[in-house]
Amino acid sequence: MNPAHPIPVGLLGATGMVGQQFVRQLEGHPWFRLAWLGASSRSAGRSYADAAHWVQDCPMPEDIGGLLVQGAAPGAECPELVFSAMDASVAGGIERAFARAGHTVLSNSRNHRLDADVPLVIPEVNPEHLALIPHQRRERGWSGAIVTNPNCSTVTLALPLAPLRPLGIRRVLVSTLQAVSGAGYPGLPAVDVLGNAIPFIPGEEDKLGAETAKILGELRGEDPVGDPGDHIDPYPAVVSAHCNRVATIDGHLVCVSVELEARPSPAEVRSLMGGFRGRPQELRLPTAPERPVRVTEDPDRPQPRRDSMAGRGMTVTAGRIRECPILGIKFAALGHNTIRGAAGASVLNAELLVAEGLLR
Amino acid sequence: MNPAHPIPVGLLGATGMVGQQFVRQLEGHPWFRLAWLGASSRSAGRSYADAAHWVQDCPMPEDIGGLLVQGAAPGAECPELVFSAMDASVAGGIERAFARAGHTVLSNSRNHRLDADVPLVIPEVNPEHLALIPHQRRERGWSGAIVTNPNCSTVTLALPLAPLRPLGIRRVLVSTLQAVSGAGYPGLPAVDVLGNAIPFIPGEEDKLGAETAKILGELRGEDPVGDPGDHIDPYPAVVSAHCNRVATIDGHLVCVSVELEARPSPAEVRSLMGGFRGRPQELRLPTAPERPVRVTEDPDRPQPRRDSMAGRGMTVTAGRIRECPILGIKFAALGHNTIRGAAGASVLNAELLVAEGLLR
Amino acid sequence: MNPAHPIPVGLLGATGMVGQQFVRQLEGHPWFRLAWLGASSRSAGRSYADAAHWVQDCPMPEDIGGLLVQGAAPGAECPELVFSAMDASVAGGIERAFARAGHTVLSNSRNHRLDADVPLVIPEVNPEHLALIPHQRRERGWSGAIVTNPNCSTVTLALPLAPLRPLGIRRVLVSTLQAVSGAGYPGLPAVDVLGNAIPFIPGEEDKLGAETAKILGELRGEDPVGDPGDHIDPYPAVVSAHCNRVATIDGHLVCVSVELEARPSPAEVRSLMGGFRGRPQELRLPTAPERPVRVTEDPDRPQPRRDSMAGRGMTVTAGRIRECPILGIKFAALGHNTIRGAAGASVLNAELLVAEGLLR
Amino acid sequence: MNPAHPIPVGLLGATGMVGQQFVRQLEGHPWFRLAWLGASSRSAGRSYADAAHWVQDCPMPEDIGGLLVQGAAPGAECPELVFSAMDASVAGGIERAFARAGHTVLSNSRNHRLDADVPLVIPEVNPEHLALIPHQRRERGWSGAIVTNPNCSTVTLALPLAPLRPLGIRRVLVSTLQAVSGAGYPGLPAVDVLGNAIPFIPGEEDKLGAETAKILGELRGEDPVGDPGDHIDPYPAVVSAHCNRVATIDGHLVCVSVELEARPSPAEVRSLMGGFRGRPQELRLPTAPERPVRVTEDPDRPQPRRDSMAGRGMTVTAGRIRECPILGIKFAALGHNTIRGAAGASVLNAELLVAEGLLR
Repeated sequence: MNPAHPIPVGLLGATGMVGQQFVRQLEGHPWFRLAWLGASSRSAGRSYADAAHWVQDCPMPEDIGGLLVQGAAPGAECPELVFSAMDASVAGGIERAFARAGHTVLSNSRNHRLDADVPLVIPEVNPEHLALIPHQRRERGWSGAIVTNPNCSTVTLALPLAPLRPLGIRRVLVSTLQAVSGAGYPGLPAVDVLGNAIPFIPGEEDKLGAETAKILGELRGEDPVGDPGDHIDPYPAVVSAHCNRVATIDGHLVCVSVELEARPSPAEVRSLMGGFRGRPQELRLPTAPERPVRVTEDPDRPQPRRDSMAGRGMTVTAGRIRECPILGIKFAALGHNTIRGAAGASVLNAELLVAEGLLR
Repeated sequence: MNPAHPIPVGLLGATGMVGQQFVRQLEGHPWFRLAWLGASSRSAGRSYADAAHWVQDCPMPEDIGGLLVQGAAPGAECPELVFSAMDASVAGGIERAFARAGHTVLSNSRNHRLDADVPLVIPEVNPEHLALIPHQRRERGWSGAIVTNPNCSTVTLALPLAPLRPLGIRRVLVSTLQAVSGAGYPGLPAVDVLGNAIPFIPGEEDKLGAETAKILGELRGEDPVGDPGDHIDPYPAVVSAHCNRVATIDGHLVCVSVELEARPSPAEVRSLMGGFRGRPQELRLPTAPERPVRVTEDPDRPQPRRDSMAGRGMTVTAGRIRECPILGIKFAALGHNTIRGAAGASVLNAELLVAEGLLR
Repeated sequence: MNPAHPIPVGLLGATGMVGQQFVRQLEGHPWFRLAWLGASSRSAGRSYADAAHWVQDCPMPEDIGGLLVQGAAPGAECPELVFSAMDASVAGGIERAFARAGHTVLSNSRNHRLDADVPLVIPEVNPEHLALIPHQRRERGWSGAIVTNPNCSTVTLALPLAPLRPLGIRRVLVSTLQAVSGAGYPGLPAVDVLGNAIPFIPGEEDKLGAETAKILGELRGEDPVGDPGDHIDPYPAVVSAHCNRVATIDGHLVCVSVELEARPSPAEVRSLMGGFRGRPQELRLPTAPERPVRVTEDPDRPQPRRDSMAGRGMTVTAGRIRECPILGIKFAALGHNTIRGAAGASVLNAELLVAEGLLR
Repeated sequence: MNPAHPIPVGLLGATGMVGQQFVRQLEGHPWFRLAWLGASSRSAGRSYADAAHWVQDCPMPEDIGGLLVQGAAPGAECPELVFSAMDASVAGGIERAFARAGHTVLSNSRNHRLDADVPLVIPEVNPEHLALIPHQRRERGWSGAIVTNPNCSTVTLALPLAPLRPLGIRRVLVSTLQAVSGAGYPGLPAVDVLGNAIPFIPGEEDKLGAETAKILGELRGEDPVGDPGDHIDPYPAVVSAHCNRVATIDGHLVCVSVELEARPSPAEVRSLMGGFRGRPQELRLPTAPERPVRVTEDPDRPQPRRDSMAGRGMTVTAGRIRECPILGIKFAALGHNTIRGAAGASVLNAELLVAEGLLR
C-alpha cells in the first residue's frame, strides 16, 4: 500500500523539543506532508522559524520554517491526521477536542495512554489494539480518535520483551540509564547532569510497569454491538524499575533481568529477539526498520552513542544476553528515545493506521 | 589507642593513579607517615615528582614529591607496613615477596582477594576475618601477611547490605553506574565515554558476587594448632550484577533489589542502615566516618557528584529505600570509588590492624 | 587585626545557587557568623533547609538549615554587614534600600558594578578604590554603602593582568572557556551543554572589558569636602573578548594575548605574576590565599578540574606563559568562578573592609 | 565529469580511528570503491571486521568487514589511488614507498604536509597547488605522488579566512576548542577530559600557523623544464594560536580575531564568506558541499553538536561576525574535524584529482 498522493498531517505542540523531533521525522516522509502546525497562543500567528527555538542537531527544514503556526484548536484547515507533541500539562483536553472534531490524534503525551479505550501501540508488538478505536468512538461519541505511543523508556523495554511472550514473562527487573533529551527542553540543568547521575525520574518507574503491561496485554471484551473489544487485559508480568538519568544525549540504555516460565537458554532468547518481525515489517511501512530488535554479540554493546541510530533510530539493540542467577535471563537493550521512543513511534503508528485503512 | 610516634609506611605502585590516591589519603594522616615509595624499574631512582604523572585534582604534597622512588622489592629501608596499589598484572608475585620478607601488605589489588587464607576486609563489616592472618603465616611460611580490601563496586554494595545480614539476605540484583576513575589511568578513552554509557566492565560482575559473598561470610575451621579459623564460608546469597561505566568522574552508584528472609518494611531497612556502626567507629579510627552508611530521604539522591564526599569519602550514602514488587526491597547507594573503594579502604584496614595490635 | 567576637552577617538571595555558595564560603569562617538570611517572598517564613533547593557538592551546614528565611527588606535583626547574592533582575533596588538603611552591602550582582561612586574591588588589585565609600555615602545620602566584586570571568582575567600594570597594558585579546556553574541555577539546559560548546554568553564580553578597565583604573577627583576621590578613571587598555560556555563544572579558563609597552620576556612576566602579593596577603586576611596568582610550568595546565581549588579556590593559576607573535605575550589562566569569581570574592572584600576599619 | 566505472581505491592505516572514518566517508561513494585495505603486520591477514576495533557511531559497512587486510606495502593488487590514514610515527616512509611504486597517495598524515614539493590542499582554497605534482615526481623520481590535506584545526580556520584574502590578511589570533575525536584512538583518557578543558595540544599551535600560511600561499618558481611551479610562497600573515581540548565529541570550534588591510565591515565579511565558492562547487564534485562556508546569524552559534554536520560535515559554519576593537574583525567558526578535517578532506582532494585528470 502506497498512498497515491501525500497525506497532509498536522502537528500539535510543534515548537517544543518533541515537536521539533516530529518535524525532523516527517521531513521527506514518503507518505506524509506536514501541512499544519499548532502551538500555544504565545507562538500562534508567527512563522515556525520565528516561533520555535530550534535545538536540533540539524538545520530546520526550510519549507517548515515558513509555515504559520496556528493556535491549538481544531479548525477547517487542519488535516484529519494530527500528531500531538504537547506537554502533558495541556495535552489532555486539547487532544480530546481534536478527536471530538473528527481528527485522528497520534499522541506522544502520557495523558490518555492508560485510558481503557485508548490504544497504546507499538506497531510490531500490539497492532491489534487499534481495534479499540471503534469502541472508543462510540463510547466517547467522537468521530475522530486518540491513539498513543509509549513513553521512551517503555518502548526500549517492551520491544525486546515482546518476542519472549510465547515463553511466559513472569517478572522483569529493570534499571535504566536514560538520556537527557528524554526530559524535553529545557529539561535538566547542565549543572545537575555534568559528571553526575541522578537515580530518580519523576513518575517513570510506574509508567514503565503500567505501560509495558498494557502493551503486552490482550484485547478483550467483545461488546454487544460487535466491536472486537473494549479494553486491554494487562499482561500479568510484574515489573520493577530503577530509573536513572545519566549524562548521555540520546539513547536510553536498560539493564534487564527477566524470569520466563519456559526457562530458555540465552541462545534461544537471542534467536527469538533477532528473528522478531511484526506487522510493520510485513506491510513494509516506510519508517519500519528491517529488524525491530537487533542482537549484538559485541561484549560491550549496546552503547547509547554508537547504537542509537540502528535502523535509522527505529531499531532497539539488545546485547549481553546471558544467564541471570536470580531471574534466569539478563541483557542490556538500547533504544533511541526521541525517535523510536517518541516522534518515530507516533509516525510509525500513523503509517500503520493508513496501511490498515483505519483513517476515516 | 593512638600511636605515640608516627608509624612509617611504604607504598608499592606509588606512581600510578591508585598510588596517587594513597598519597592523598596518607597526607596529614595522624598515625602514618609515608616514608617509602616503590614502583617499577622505569620509575625507580627518580624523585616522585619526576616519576609520577600526577593527575589528581589537588597539588602533589611537597614532601612526597622529593622522595626517591625505589624498586618494587623488599629491602632494609622499607617499613613493615606496606600499601600496595600495583596493577594486577604484577601485584601477585611482588606482594607475596614482601609478605615473605616480613611485611604486612595492605593490598588494593585483586590478585589475592579470593585466596582462602587471605582476609578481604571492610573494617565495619568483617573485622573478625583478620583472624586468618596467623593461619596464613603458618600455611605460607611467611613472617608478614597480605590483607586485602574489596573492589570499588563491591564496597558500595556490601556496606549497605551488611546491616541487613540479621534479616537474612537471599538474593541481590544490582545494576551499577560506575565512574571513570575506577578504571585507573589512562583507563577508558574519552572518545568512548563522552555522552555515552558502556554496559560492560571486564570481570566486574563476577568480582561483585564473589567478593560480597566472602566479605559477608563467616570465619570457619578452627584448626589443630588453635588458630581461630582457616577459611571463610561465603555468605549464601545469590548476587546477579549488571555493571555499567558512565560519564561520571568519581562515585559508583548502584541500584539494588534485595530479597530478605525477614520481609522487613522500607522503614526497618532505613533504620538498620542508618544505625549501623562497626569496629572502626567503636575504636574511633582516624579515618573512620561517623556513619558507615548514611540514609538520605531526598527523592533524587544519592548522586555521584554531590554525595561521594560524605564522611570525607568514607561514607556510603543509601537512598530511595522502597518496596520492590519482585525482591521485596530496593534502593540506590553511592560510594566514593577511589576513597572508600580503594586507597581509603586500605588505610582504614591498616588503622584497624594497628589498633587491634595485629602488626608484628 | 582579628575581631574579638564573631561579626554577625546577613545574606540576601540566600536560597539561590550563588547564595548557597556564600553559605559554604562562610561556614566555619573565623570572623563572620551567618546570622540572617533574606530571600524572596516565596521563601520567606520557611526554614532555610526547607526553602533552598541545595545543589552543592557537600551537605548543607546543619546550623544554617535551621535558620528562618526573612523577606528581602532591611529590618532590626539584620546585621550591618550584608552579602548580596540576588539575581540582577531584583538586586538593584533591594541593595539600595539596604544601603540607605545603614547596611554595608557586599554585592556579587552586576547592577551597581559600573556606577561611578561604587567600588568594584579585587582586594589584591585595587583596595584603594574603597575610598569611594565616603563620597558614595554623601552623594546618595546613605548611612550604609554598596561595595561590589567583579563578574566571574573578569576576576580570572584581571588578577593575572594586575601584576603587569607597571609594564603598561595596552591591548588584551581574551577567549574564555567558562564553566556551567557560572550561569547560576538552573542555568543552561543539559541538552545544550553535553558534548557541546556555546560561543556566546549574553553580556559577558562587554562586562569583561568594562569591569577590567575599572578595576585596573585609578581613583580620581579629590572633591571639595576632602574625600580622597569621587570616581575611577578606567585603565586605558583595549580589551576584546570571545566568551564561550563549555562542559566544565567549575573553573573559568581564559586564553589571553596581551600587548605590553615594556615588551617583557615570558620569564619576566612569570616572575611578576608569581611574585605578586597584595593588601590581603599583607593583612593576612583569613581567606586570602598565600599567592593570588600561581604560575605553573606544566605544559598542559591550568585545567579547570585540577587547578580550580588552588589556594582553596582563591588563587588564579597562570600557565603556558610564552611569546605571542602578534601581541607579545600569551598565556592561559584559570580561576574558580564560584569562589574567587563570586562568593569568595565578596567575603574577601568584607574581610578587607573589616581589617581596614571601614565598617561604621 | 563522472567516471563511467567506479574507481577502485586503497586505504593505508585502515583499522585505526581515522581509517575507520575513511571507510565511512567512502561508503556509497558514487565514484570510488574501497577495494584494498592496508595496515600494520598485527592486522594483516585478518578480515577487516576482525582486525578493526570499530568505534564509529554507525555500523561497519558489511562489504568492508569481509575484506582481507593487507600489509602496508605496495603490491600488484593495490589500486593507483591510495588514501593514507596512518599514524605519523610510520606514515612517512610507507607513503613514500607507495608514491615511488606509482601510487597517488592522498595523505591525512602530517609527515609530508610542509615538504616544499608536496601540495597541501583544500580544494576550494588552493586547487592550483596540485600543479606541484609534476615537479614532485621529477624531483623525487617517482611515478606516483603524495598529496596532503591539512590538520583538522587548520581547515576550520583556513576555509573561512580564504574568502578574505582579497582584503589582505595581516594577523590572525585564534583560540581553538577542539573535540576529543581529533586526538585519534585511544587519544585522551576520559579521566582527563570529563568536566575539564586542557589548554594544550602538542604541536598544534605551530601546525595551525605553518599550514595556514602554506595553504593560502602562492605557487611559485616556474622551473627550467616548464613545470608550473616548484614551491609555495607562504602567505605573509602572522598567526598566533591558543589550542585547547574540550569535552566535545566532534567539531572544532575556533574563535578568531583577524586584521585585514582593507578594514571591511562585518557585513562585508559576512557577504564574502557566505558567497565563497571554489573549484569543487564549480566541478560539482560528489562530496563538495553547496557552500564551503555557511554564515549563521544566530547569536549563539555555531555549536559543535549542532552545526558540525552542516553540508554533511563538509561545510564550515561561521558566526558572530562582528568588530574586534583590537584586530578589526572577530568571529567564531566550526568545522567537523573528522570529516572536513580528515577523511572527508582527503576524499574531496581525490575527487578533485580525478576531475582534473591528474591521475596517471
